[in-house]
Amino acid sequence: MSFVKDFRWEKGITAEELVNRYQNIGFQSTELYRASDVIVKMKKDSAKIFLTFTSNMVSSGLRGFFSQLIELGMADIVVTTVGAIEEDIMKAIGERFSIGSFDSDDVELHEKGINRVGNLFIKNESYMKLEDWMLPFLDNLYKKKNRWAVSEMLKEIGLSLNDENSFLYQAAKKDVPVFCPAITDGAFGFHLYLFQQKNRDFVVDVVSDFGNILLCTNFDEKKGVIALGGSISKHHAILSTLLNGGAEYAVYMTTAHKTSGSMSGATTDEAKSWGKVKDDSDVATVIGDVTIMFPLVMINVLEKLDREGLLKAEYKEKKKINLDRSRKYAKS
Amino acid sequence: MSFVKDFRWEKGITAEELVNRYQNIGFQSTELYRASDVIVKMKKDSAKIFLTFTSNMVSSGLRGFFSQLIELGMADIVVTTVGAIEEDIMKAIGERFSIGSFDSDDVELHEKGINRVGNLFIKNESYMKLEDWMLPFLDNLYKKKNRWAVSEMLKEIGLSLNDENSFLYQAAKKDVPVFCPAITDGAFGFHLYLFQQKNRDFVVDVVSDFGNILLCTNFDEKKGVIALGGSISKHHAILSTLLNGGAEYAVYMTTAHKTSGSMSGATTDEAKSWGKVKDDSDVATVIGDVTIMFPLVMINVLEKLDREGLLKAEYKEKKKINLDRSRKYAKS
Amino acid sequence: MSFVKDFRWEKGITAEELVNRYQNIGFQSTELYRASDVIVKMKKDSAKIFLTFTSNMVSSGLRGFFSQLIELGMADIVVTTVGAIEEDIMKAIGERFSIGSFDSDDVELHEKGINRVGNLFIKNESYMKLEDWMLPFLDNLYKKKNRWAVSEMLKEIGLSLNDENSFLYQAAKKDVPVFCPAITDGAFGFHLYLFQQKNRDFVVDVVSDFGNILLCTNFDEKKGVIALGGSISKHHAILSTLLNGGAEYAVYMTTAHKTSGSMSGATTDEAKSWGKVKDDSDVATVIGDVTIMFPLVMINVLEKLDREGLLKAEYKEKKKINLDRSRKYAKS
Amino acid sequence: MSFVKDFRWEKGITAEELVNRYQNIGFQSTELYRASDVIVKMKKDSAKIFLTFTSNMVSSGLRGFFSQLIELGMADIVVTTVGAIEEDIMKAIGERFSIGSFDSDDVELHEKGINRVGNLFIKNESYMKLEDWMLPFLDNLYKKKNRWAVSEMLKEIGLSLNDENSFLYQAAKKDVPVFCPAITDGAFGFHLYLFQQKNRDFVVDVVSDFGNILLCTNFDEKKGVIALGGSISKHHAILSTLLNGGAEYAVYMTTAHKTSGSMSGATTDEAKSWGKVKDDSDVATVIGDVTIMFPLVMINVLEKLDREGLLKAEYKEKKKINLDRSRKYAKS
Repeated sequence: MSFVKDFRWEKGITAEELVNRYQNIGFQSTELYRASDVIVKMKKDSAKIFLTFTSNMVSSGLRGFFSQLIELGMADIVVTTVGAIEEDIMKAIGERFSIGSFDSDDVELHEKGINRVGNLFIKNESYMKLEDWMLPFLDNLYKKKNRWAVSEMLKEIGLSLNDENSFLYQAAKKDVPVFCPAITDGAFGFHLYLFQQKNRDFVVDVVSDFGNILLCTNFDEKKGVIALGGSISKHHAILSTLLNGGAEYAVYMTTAHKTSGSMSGATTDEAKSWGKVKDDSDVATVIGDVTIMFPLVMINVLEKLDREGLLKAEYKEKKKINLDRSRKYAKS
Repeated sequence: MSFVKDFRWEKGITAEELVNRYQNIGFQSTELYRASDVIVKMKKDSAKIFLTFTSNMVSSGLRGFFSQLIELGMADIVVTTVGAIEEDIMKAIGERFSIGSFDSDDVELHEKGINRVGNLFIKNESYMKLEDWMLPFLDNLYKKKNRWAVSEMLKEIGLSLNDENSFLYQAAKKDVPVFCPAITDGAFGFHLYLFQQKNRDFVVDVVSDFGNILLCTNFDEKKGVIALGGSISKHHAILSTLLNGGAEYAVYMTTAHKTSGSMSGATTDEAKSWGKVKDDSDVATVIGDVTIMFPLVMINVLEKLDREGLLKAEYKEKKKINLDRSRKYAKS
Repeated sequence: MSFVKDFRWEKGITAEELVNRYQNIGFQSTELYRASDVIVKMKKDSAKIFLTFTSNMVSSGLRGFFSQLIELGMADIVVTTVGAIEEDIMKAIGERFSIGSFDSDDVELHEKGINRVGNLFIKNESYMKLEDWMLPFLDNLYKKKNRWAVSEMLKEIGLSLNDENSFLYQAAKKDVPVFCPAITDGAFGFHLYLFQQKNRDFVVDVVSDFGNILLCTNFDEKKGVIALGGSISKHHAILSTLLNGGAEYAVYMTTAHKTSGSMSGATTDEAKSWGKVKDDSDVATVIGDVTIMFPLVMINVLEKLDREGLLKAEYKEKKKINLDRSRKYAKS
Repeated sequence: MSFVKDFRWEKGITAEELVNRYQNIGFQSTELYRASDVIVKMKKDSAKIFLTFTSNMVSSGLRGFFSQLIELGMADIVVTTVGAIEEDIMKAIGERFSIGSFDSDDVELHEKGINRVGNLFIKNESYMKLEDWMLPFLDNLYKKKNRWAVSEMLKEIGLSLNDENSFLYQAAKKDVPVFCPAITDGAFGFHLYLFQQKNRDFVVDVVSDFGNILLCTNFDEKKGVIALGGSISKHHAILSTLLNGGAEYAVYMTTAHKTSGSMSGATTDEAKSWGKVKDDSDVATVIGDVTIMFPLVMINVLEKLDREGLLKAEYKEKKKINLDRSRKYAKS
């Protein structure tokens, strides 16, 4: 049994130490510490880690952090939504998103050609740049073959980018597959559609890609899920581990509550119903905004694993990938 | 300017009248009335109506209501998630879901072979029945052709069912297309995958299906969106209307808040940024549980439209579809 | 074990019937039905009923409904916050609140002398009218005695009003005590303070009023709590029943969740820890907006109790109280 | 205009630096940074700072942090609920609260004499210790005089305690008044009641205490509000600044949303309607759990103010107050 301890600031306190203190503060701060603890356990136990996030998190500055986590070996499989793919590409080719307000005048924004995602702004121009990038990319893709599983296609994208803050780039570099079960649900899908109109035998094979995610792991391997937000990215990861016997570890972070019966709000209690999770120390659900909580949780995890030498070595070297490769690709 | 009015119960008060009174109660009850008002307007203006819902709502008793709404001509396009497809089929072939508790012992449920969705229970057996149903269905499908757009496939399912409470059945009967942008994200996807393993040229064409939803409507038509919950079903409908010049009317019902920047919590204010919605009277966002709010809103709408003769005539006749047809299908 | 049933609209469906159907829809609609069921049980079991609400609900049109419920014998003790007292008086003396928007321009409202409570507007003028009413009222009060328990004072207010939609009026008429544990936390408190500056021996005795709420009931009586929203009104009722051995029945309706450890979000599970509630059928927590849910729940309750003759007889007669009495009071 | 920046972990990152990075991450992390910025501004502008919190935060480990903030001169007026008073005393006299689970078996806890507040446990024994402490304390108090304003009484309590983690102790030491507008709404109130039964002329004067909070500041002084959670503690501080011309600065942290029209969810936008706040840079509302967010925000503030020498000097000396004084008091 642990006790509530009075928290006091000490000058220069690190983020890691703050999270350690959360353990004894109570309410969601205690749950946040537990989430960190579960992730340390899943890594030490060599579990295959599924990391899932929604597109708004890639709109935010978490994008670079996701990329760093992949680089450091903290994600073995990534599941996300198509908006995340689009925005990762936009940012990789130089577009910048600005910080606005949740209470903007949306009519005015529309007139200025600005799209709002919460308190973040994306210019129409950025979507046009994406389009310019996609057309030659799809041509190249089609030259190689006409039937693509989604994750294969996303790996090609990653290989063609050159931005260490791009999660597609880092995933491609580290051979971490990226899955996106609703690839058409965005501007990306629209360009795929227009391309198929010209090339009728071009096929995006979502069915075989479901096989790919299933084959990423198996019944005998330990499995862990870190699900940020809800939506199909969360569901797809859970489903994939379920069909392989269930996950041993699960951490959910979300603003949704379980009371509406939605996927987004479903807690890790259900993970216990998968039959593999043995006790409460292996699952954690933290309620709150991912942009605040996820860096806190993972900094605590990274500092601890780093001290134990469990982060990927490349982190120290950080060799820049050859810029020429992707430039050539883009022009080819 | 309208005023707050003291609400008082009158014996036998109808649901319609209660919602009318909500207009003057304040907070979300006023927003709920406004949602009803916007839907009446979108119908009278002959807008093409996109109805979107998530799978947990089909787990619930709203399933029959969605079906009735399609029957009555209140939805021209349906967008949902694959869990909704699975559960609609399960229920159509006789499976029953039971009502449990949000605070069930999930380990115990697992041992009993019961899956929990909020306070609803689905037996493993129901998933096995779905599997039994799918195998001959997919064989039949493949005999017809090897490349299917998702909505085409879902129409075939609807035609093969015979349950007036099935939304797939009613949609097929009324030629209302059903879109599901992440068709592999469920047990359904697993069966598609196993089938493709045996029949390598079997293709589910999600790209062409995105063309199908775009072609359901056009720039010149009025368009309305009724989005229940968040997720890709909501996003896909909004995206589809956006690419056709934006919706004139939008009603969102959700438990999510805009503060996290998520799709689920995005409000109809953004609809104004689409540039077509002119004023506040054409959009409404209501915060709360859809199982409580949606029946209230729509009963108010239906009673009003019914008095004006704007509901589909078939409602009065309600001819039973020929049972033999679907039975033959299932056995063929 | 009950099953999910497909809901279908039937022309003219009553609010009572809709709530009956909720029982088999699932998620919060099922909880809402259960809330109704628990209240029917607490009434049939002749429990003393504590009804608690916050001031924003009295800003809304629920005010008249609370009054009607008191009239019908559905509340034996009322607990609320001081804003509710102020607004009940304002409305009783003729002030009207208007319906605005959650997204109003607050700087502009300020310039117009308008105060916003969510999507409701209260004019500065209404506060001035309250002040005009309070000064002679306090003079009269002080003439009677110099030391007042809060509930005694609120009864005097109720007796001096003449508005069947006023909860203070109905409570006074029916001898239902109204408690307000933080009587100074509003404009009302400011006027009490100014009055005390002139009359130093004027005392509002909150301590003796805590005795009054404790003596409203006892260990041997059955007790029920209907808590709308959170705050001290909810806490005070729970505390009072706890000190009398705990409540047998409890229904909470709130938008708050239990995850932050707040009073507002605490569920009825804790009622079980009081040691009197025996099983799940006697408590219910419903998550959502009270303005939508409370009328639904209570209409279902009232229709059922009315058929069994369990509502107070006066409801049928509804004799107008003598207008002269309160007019004389106001002028005296 | 600022831009979204990709966040990347750096070994040993401090909590201050993390919050600085939040500025460019987006969604609530950006709002959290802004909250920190507003508090730095209010302190530099020498505003009188109202700090409000609810009792569950004193159940948690934030209690010690509140005390440290008072010690460092970051709060000039404190407003809270009576549960906070009770638990501060319990902890000061040696009681410990333990950390449990949100999903505890409440019936079992009841049998063990344990009270649950979210995921924190308080033993019945701790309440008995509080009672033992209160009886001689009230006797002493009454010997001095028979009519006490609440804040005067709370100062006496603070002076009688000796625990640097007690906010009542630190407030008394620093002459920071503590207000509690609903002093009877807890076990504390019950003991006041029992004491008054024996001493009928014992009066707790809440009306004069409202004068006390009003006189803490005035129209000419700059005023700032830091409101944690909702309830009457938040409302009382806002009301008090409002009656003195409004606050120049306001930071709210809460899990409640504005959509229900409740006090707890009301945003700082309304602060603009007070007419004193000039622009958006002076107010911030952050949505989330206070136990996670408040330490983050304030660490950032403290590190910055410390570097500028704006924290109270005593912080460095930290002289232990004379233990004898309070021991003598307790025995007297």
